Amino acid sequence: MTTTYDHTNVFAKILRGELPVKKIYEDETTLAFPTIEPKAPIHIIVIPKGAYTDYLDFVSHASNTELIGFNRALAIITEQNGLHKNGCRLISNFGAHGGQEVPHFHIHLLGGKFLSKAITIDD
Amino acid sequence: MTTTYDHTNVFAKILRGELPVKKIYEDETTLAFPTIEPKAPIHIIVIPKGAYTDYLDFVSHASNTELIGFNRALAIITEQNGLHKNGCRLISNFGAHGGQEVPHFHIHLLGGKFLSKAITIDD
Repeated sequence: MTTTYDHTNVFAKILRGELPVKKIYEDETTLAFPTIEPKAPIHIIVIPKGAYTDYLDFVSHASNTELIGFNRALAIITEQNGLHKNGCRLISNFGAHGGQEVPHFHIHLLGGKFLSKAITIDD
Repeated sequence: MTTTYDHTNVFAKILRGELPVKKIYEDETTLAFPTIEPKAPIHIIVIPKGAYTDYLDFVSHASNTELIGFNRALAIITEQNGLHKNGCRLISNFGAHGGQEVPHFHIHLLGGKFLSKAITIDD
């Protein structure tokens, strides 16, 4: 795995304001927006503002401030979108085996209905 | 969603040493072990040692030290198990909609092969 960050990826363009997006949450460390290809009634992408290629890059190299900010932002985003009521699923795809497509670390928050075991692993 | 922690859940029993488990990582904040029902060649469960019912409870209420410890542990566990080479998938099921079964926050780390889009959402 290379961890060279590709500044032309779509989430980098969103962070630079070069692509429009409906921001549903933003703070110093974190941005969230709906995906354009939702797989559930609620499907939110949450990204750090820092240039991290994937989940491993983020948890390895982000500052403590970035880690804490991102985790606390997840709590706020989850509640502001009503996902605390019935739950949701959090997924991050990392690298080739994970099927990652956009090389900027991102978490999918999925909810708004019961999410079948068939579309993921069993608990 | 209730956040009352059920101290009889299976991961609580593992943390108390009441159920045997093959520990593959342990530090002050975090424990990791293979699942007994693997859905991929590598399928690791990572849990905080603190009594958090689910992902939202953890990112809302864990201390900064616990958050940082858990995130940094994920990096170590990922590398120690070779998942940095080709990637993996990180999943946390939260509540009824997420299909959560064990009411102690846990992350699934899956890898060791290409993980089909069919068993999760698209990236």
